[in-house]
Amino acid sequence: MSQIPFTDIVANLPASVPFVGPEQIERERGFTFRAKLGANESPFGPSPKARDAIQTAIEDSWEYPDATSVTLRQAIARHWDINTDNVLVGAGIDELLGNVVRMTVPPGGAVVTSNGAYPTFNYHVHGFGGTLHLVDYRDDHEDLDALAAKAQAVDARLVYLSNPDNPMGTRHTADAVADFRRRLPTDTLLVLDEAYSEFAPEGTNPPVDPSDTNLIRLRTFSKIYGLAALRVGYAIAHADAVTGLNKIRNHFGVNRVAQHAARAALEDQAYIDALKNEIERGKRAYAEIARRHGFTALPSFTNFVTIEVGGVARGDRLLKALQDRRVFIRKPGVPPLDRCIRVTVGPEDQRTIFEQAFAEAVQEVG
Amino acid sequence: MSQIPFTDIVANLPASVPFVGPEQIERERGFTFRAKLGANESPFGPSPKARDAIQTAIEDSWEYPDATSVTLRQAIARHWDINTDNVLVGAGIDELLGNVVRMTVPPGGAVVTSNGAYPTFNYHVHGFGGTLHLVDYRDDHEDLDALAAKAQAVDARLVYLSNPDNPMGTRHTADAVADFRRRLPTDTLLVLDEAYSEFAPEGTNPPVDPSDTNLIRLRTFSKIYGLAALRVGYAIAHADAVTGLNKIRNHFGVNRVAQHAARAALEDQAYIDALKNEIERGKRAYAEIARRHGFTALPSFTNFVTIEVGGVARGDRLLKALQDRRVFIRKPGVPPLDRCIRVTVGPEDQRTIFEQAFAEAVQEVG
Repeated sequence: MSQIPFTDIVANLPASVPFVGPEQIERERGFTFRAKLGANESPFGPSPKARDAIQTAIEDSWEYPDATSVTLRQAIARHWDINTDNVLVGAGIDELLGNVVRMTVPPGGAVVTSNGAYPTFNYHVHGFGGTLHLVDYRDDHEDLDALAAKAQAVDARLVYLSNPDNPMGTRHTADAVADFRRRLPTDTLLVLDEAYSEFAPEGTNPPVDPSDTNLIRLRTFSKIYGLAALRVGYAIAHADAVTGLNKIRNHFGVNRVAQHAARAALEDQAYIDALKNEIERGKRAYAEIARRHGFTALPSFTNFVTIEVGGVARGDRLLKALQDRRVFIRKPGVPPLDRCIRVTVGPEDQRTIFEQAFAEAVQEVG
Repeated sequence: MSQIPFTDIVANLPASVPFVGPEQIERERGFTFRAKLGANESPFGPSPKARDAIQTAIEDSWEYPDATSVTLRQAIARHWDINTDNVLVGAGIDELLGNVVRMTVPPGGAVVTSNGAYPTFNYHVHGFGGTLHLVDYRDDHEDLDALAAKAQAVDARLVYLSNPDNPMGTRHTADAVADFRRRLPTDTLLVLDEAYSEFAPEGTNPPVDPSDTNLIRLRTFSKIYGLAALRVGYAIAHADAVTGLNKIRNHFGVNRVAQHAARAALEDQAYIDALKNEIERGKRAYAEIARRHGFTALPSFTNFVTIEVGGVARGDRLLKALQDRRVFIRKPGVPPLDRCIRVTVGPEDQRTIFEQAFAEAVQEVG
């Protein structure tokens, strides 16, 4: 009998997926969610200028995108006052992570990350046959000391850190991150996922310095910029790292609509500034809701609030009770983080839906 | 000094890219093309229903796409009367090719393709460290006998065949392809790229039979469906192959706009049927233009016409002379195919631009 000639790596991979999306839950349960507050998108939507850019791009829908995303890369370079050569655009941080892993991790290569951090990063490491070394969170923060020590101990090719952190919403200061970078082995590449950085205060993100060969910073248009549907993110990195990624990436992978919309969104910083205030208001509202029910909201440096609900079983039941009320949220997957639930900040009408459903859920779960 | 920890494969790859896009030529030359007839998109654009779908999708631009593209996959499954489990959607055929190579080709693994066929396939094979074995075209067709013999000789993991063929526009019959499939080694996977299949007559595409474990058929919305900007294509394959690809693909890689627009485009077959007639007209017009200048157009089973212009030097000069007149076309890259130029069928106004520029170019080149 004939067989598909899988590589050993693929033959040995489990058939798991990083995330089950809300559409799948909707199909299984036969309803549509009233509020989707589980994936930390921006339910506020993108800048009107980005919407206009999508509208305009309809005319060119027959035409392949620019494989080098030059116009968008130039806008990003201007935004950060760096060279275009230090910017690589990808189909979201997920695609960039996959290519960074592929570029640096041979089968068996050592990779260090936090236990409970981004599942899609782990998925890619497994997918390329790398060996994951997990370090526990400490006090709901990624543990920089332990991460650096582990990277030294296993001579890691790659270390993944998200700052601010997902799923806990905590952060380290820019100084702490810069110090952490210096404590890694000489040839270790630090992947700094800054998907939530726009929500964090000054002093969270180290200065942008693309002369560092061993630091790749990842940014996205899926969070504050409100364009998760279109799949676009970018890396800021040393030109040699960009060259390396250009050797392997899918060159026509970033669609044309995304390139135009992302540029328009980036160039409307007034919209982003206004949004930040609204999100701060939303975070305070969620903290107040938590308090009212006797729970504690962790201080958040992101667009979501992580709420301690007093144990994994109660958290799971609350998630389920919220789902029964057609409210979609998520919760961390590993102990001790899984004693919490995680709720995205949406506009006021969505927060109200959450508030009411949560009150009922708490009542039901006890 | 610190160094980026490239894998050996990436360290040894050249910094080449599969294609230079028209935008890059425009930037270098400081003009915009009057007619882009080089990438075999559909300058006719997509169905009005697909345009409407893009318009509608603006509202949801904040929301992640369905990672499983279920609605689109169901529409594709209905179209072919197969199971949804036999359909995998990707960000264009390019992404699917990369994942098929990754799934099956270990470093050094043997891969067979035609010398002068799709550069992006070769790019992915190199990118995963595979060993390419090239077989010459015969009489401007991919040489099925030689491909099968080579696959046997090197015990290929993967064989790539495009039918109809790009860049020559020729085809093999469905019977010849089915016979070719049977002559491959038992465990060889045949990648059948059918990007141009909608332009070909009955009897070109073998019946769809997803029970064949060792055949993956690739289709795209970038050609006749006019949605190259959005990046969406699909594979029809045995469910085990789909499961394998699901273990490694970028799960949120197909954007939401693309999923909606592709479904709308697929469901408007009346638009596609009308387009086919218009494209046949355009191909006859190009053949007549070629004849008028003493050249020969190859019979085309695609949406482009490949024209023999009597030698590689003249072809290169004609390409350049057309570019000087702001008309973008391409030509095959390897002998003996490179004695030809290749022109995409566009609407009548674009064909007229080509006709006039080509007359001047022939005059200039001699």
